[in-house]
Amino acid sequence: MGHRKLPVNDQSSYGQDKILDSRKCKRSTELSEFELSEERMRAIVDEAMERIVDFIGTLPEQPSNQLDGAEKAARLLIEPLPEEGEPYEGLLERLFDEVIPFGFNAASPGYLAYIPAGGLFQSALADFIAKSVNRFTSIWLPAPGLAQIEAVVVRWFCEVMGYPDEALGLLTTGGSMANFTAVFTARRERLEEDFLRGSIYVSDQMHHSMQKAAMLAGFPSSSVRVVSSDSDCRMRLDELEELIEVDRADGWQPFFVAGIAGTVNTGAVDDLAGIAAIASAQGLWFHVDAAYGGLFMLTKRGRDVLNGIELSDSMSLDPHKSLFIPYGTGSLLVRDRETLARAHSTQADYLPTMRDDPDFIDFSEISPELSRGHRGLGIWLPLKMHGAGAFRRQLDEKLDLAQWITEQLREIKGIEIFADPQLSLVTFRLVDPGLSDDELNGLNRCFLQAVNDRRRVFMSHGVVGGKYVLRICVLSFRTHMPTMEIALEDIRAVVDELIEN
Amino acid sequence: MGHRKLPVNDQSSYGQDKILDSRKCKRSTELSEFELSEERMRAIVDEAMERIVDFIGTLPEQPSNQLDGAEKAARLLIEPLPEEGEPYEGLLERLFDEVIPFGFNAASPGYLAYIPAGGLFQSALADFIAKSVNRFTSIWLPAPGLAQIEAVVVRWFCEVMGYPDEALGLLTTGGSMANFTAVFTARRERLEEDFLRGSIYVSDQMHHSMQKAAMLAGFPSSSVRVVSSDSDCRMRLDELEELIEVDRADGWQPFFVAGIAGTVNTGAVDDLAGIAAIASAQGLWFHVDAAYGGLFMLTKRGRDVLNGIELSDSMSLDPHKSLFIPYGTGSLLVRDRETLARAHSTQADYLPTMRDDPDFIDFSEISPELSRGHRGLGIWLPLKMHGAGAFRRQLDEKLDLAQWITEQLREIKGIEIFADPQLSLVTFRLVDPGLSDDELNGLNRCFLQAVNDRRRVFMSHGVVGGKYVLRICVLSFRTHMPTMEIALEDIRAVVDELIEN
Repeated sequence: MGHRKLPVNDQSSYGQDKILDSRKCKRSTELSEFELSEERMRAIVDEAMERIVDFIGTLPEQPSNQLDGAEKAARLLIEPLPEEGEPYEGLLERLFDEVIPFGFNAASPGYLAYIPAGGLFQSALADFIAKSVNRFTSIWLPAPGLAQIEAVVVRWFCEVMGYPDEALGLLTTGGSMANFTAVFTARRERLEEDFLRGSIYVSDQMHHSMQKAAMLAGFPSSSVRVVSSDSDCRMRLDELEELIEVDRADGWQPFFVAGIAGTVNTGAVDDLAGIAAIASAQGLWFHVDAAYGGLFMLTKRGRDVLNGIELSDSMSLDPHKSLFIPYGTGSLLVRDRETLARAHSTQADYLPTMRDDPDFIDFSEISPELSRGHRGLGIWLPLKMHGAGAFRRQLDEKLDLAQWITEQLREIKGIEIFADPQLSLVTFRLVDPGLSDDELNGLNRCFLQAVNDRRRVFMSHGVVGGKYVLRICVLSFRTHMPTMEIALEDIRAVVDELIEN
Repeated sequence: MGHRKLPVNDQSSYGQDKILDSRKCKRSTELSEFELSEERMRAIVDEAMERIVDFIGTLPEQPSNQLDGAEKAARLLIEPLPEEGEPYEGLLERLFDEVIPFGFNAASPGYLAYIPAGGLFQSALADFIAKSVNRFTSIWLPAPGLAQIEAVVVRWFCEVMGYPDEALGLLTTGGSMANFTAVFTARRERLEEDFLRGSIYVSDQMHHSMQKAAMLAGFPSSSVRVVSSDSDCRMRLDELEELIEVDRADGWQPFFVAGIAGTVNTGAVDDLAGIAAIASAQGLWFHVDAAYGGLFMLTKRGRDVLNGIELSDSMSLDPHKSLFIPYGTGSLLVRDRETLARAHSTQADYLPTMRDDPDFIDFSEISPELSRGHRGLGIWLPLKMHGAGAFRRQLDEKLDLAQWITEQLREIKGIEIFADPQLSLVTFRLVDPGLSDDELNGLNRCFLQAVNDRRRVFMSHGVVGGKYVLRICVLSFRTHMPTMEIALEDIRAVVDELIEN
């Protein structure tokens, strides 16, 4: 594209205009303190890269969690808004030495807690590019190329998940906003404006963001029905049907059921085809919270486990989980793109013209947000650089590693596998017939704490039916067999200690 | 902090375990395709920086808008999910040559449309650091340092806006989510679970995101009352009071009124102290949509115009507008932090322990989102590097530039200043007593198009009372006097052309 040369720094013509009050309007050269020279831009990036490269390179040796001194360090950050600036170099040093190190090291290979991802550097770089060029991408016209990148990524997800051609979706900040947008869209699609008698069905293993989503979208707490889960932590379909019938008889309007593709406690995947059949028979919107597990559809084993997910009306995915992207990118897909448009579309005279072409998406018209950051490049670039095959291989490895450690744990005397991995998450605990339930929970709390205190790996816990269980979730692209061996070593050592005492 | 040396690459111990099925679990070295070497990380950043530095350095010469060929380029991006990767270098080239250039050049000094900001490179870099280290910051414990940075930034905003010590807030993706969170919080605070008779008051100049916010939070369209604006585009307070009284008599529950600190059409700032008095007398939650104008509180003139904003219960700010941050960071502040906690708090067994210390914030407990990207560093770093003084000087310059061009435009025969800038936004149009309203609107549409077709500056329009007006909003840190002179030159040239024909 051709550039026009403009006389922007033409000082000779500047300031000659009589009307200009030169005491008020300073020369641009004096006001460019925010615009760094090329050299300075390169220098501050190089200095940041020194620290980033060191951070990433030493991840395997860094402690998996660092809480000593955290409160003190956090309190030191509290200060009034500074009037004057200070040198970048000192700020960078402070950040990497006194701010970033505290907490749980979610980037490290030893992070096996909650839902790991690692956070691909390639994706961080893609976001850096997007922020540097600062285009407005939630309407197509202001950034046709970058907006299209978001649309392309969303269509890739639809393709992976087995959705039909008329499916579409959006990129969100994470699973919470995806679940909220699903409930909101279903509310608009299936209920009248007076929707307070609409009822929502979730299992007792549902992530709390689904209940929060219902609350945000206006539903009273009494609208949310909690269906029991079976011994495999999957929603009981008989109870679901029964509750729907009872509610209908009581004048409720059952309209939404959420399945789970990877529960937060044990990683269980609901009988999605079974829920789909009930939803279809009963006329309910079928949503799947697949934030953790959905993108395992890239693998053969994942497709077997997730069978039926393609029958849903909507699903939440978290690329910042199973695509290894840094925190901040989720997705909601819907089977019928028109549902998003009908729910969200608003018009305003002052906005740029919207598209009327199915290939081009004005995301503000199908989502809750207008201005927001670009979210496509951070997924597009890693997928284009490495290909879906690389992601498939990584996910397959995680499935293997979870199976492997499950078999290893099963061999340890005193440990019970609470739930075998359906995907890459295993739960287990110490059992001892001589202990009460409370004592057993206390013992397992100590067990987890002692493993994490070794600071080589970091695990978390779940509570299922009152039982405190330890969780290992293998999902970081940095986690390979050596980390699993370390985890096993530490678990064995702690079990030995606990049994000795 | 001390690092422990772990035997993560100890190949000698790896693979000796009999239970390992080595056909399934490949060696970690084979699976590290996502983990780049130090050299490779530096190389891909250097290559990106070549393009970024060139992009930023040539901004003044780049066209302010580029739509020719945009559809074709966007369509070329459509492809199935690729199985294999391709070289980064080619992707980078494609991005900068065939993707990014299209659309409106929001980063350029000539961008005077909608609400500009520029997008500080320093902030993009800060986000890059945050994404690279990938901490989970919406709960305090997993990232005490980085979570604290968000809290510090929010408190700075409270300080600037004149809120009391018990105020707090959160960082959002932009104004839409801030407005939504305000309506939701007020709904939870002021209404029962059956809230459908709650009524909301906005002026006819309100940004459509406020109506969308009400819809998202569950309110029927009939809940939103549109109050007329006066000839200065400010909400008519007499009508506001009248509507509240009538609604109350009709059984509605008036609970929320939104003032505007910088309307999207003309930049008008409501009589905030006046609305505050009515809200207080009537017991309404008083929210201010200050996405555009709020942070002008950094300047003396801004404080005069925004007088009364500190009396509000909540306000939306957009650092990606008046703090020059790249798109993707808004903020909601509330006068009483407890209101956010009461509205949003949810508990779940599987989450990390929450804080019980007013200095430390678990943002997931006071906001709609759980996992999301970090948002603090992109504001903290530029403010720490340059100090608030630098931002104040920039904003003061924008106020001057808007005044200056207003005086210049006033001198042009045929142009009428539609609304003088209260802050940095001026609206104007061509007038001709011989033309009908429709013809005049058509003429001004041509006027805008012709200025933008010169592609040196980019302006947008508003529609007020059926009148199509041109808007110049000066708010990019890259916009200085030379750009205003170019804008004036192009406007004069187009006016001459239009009058000749």
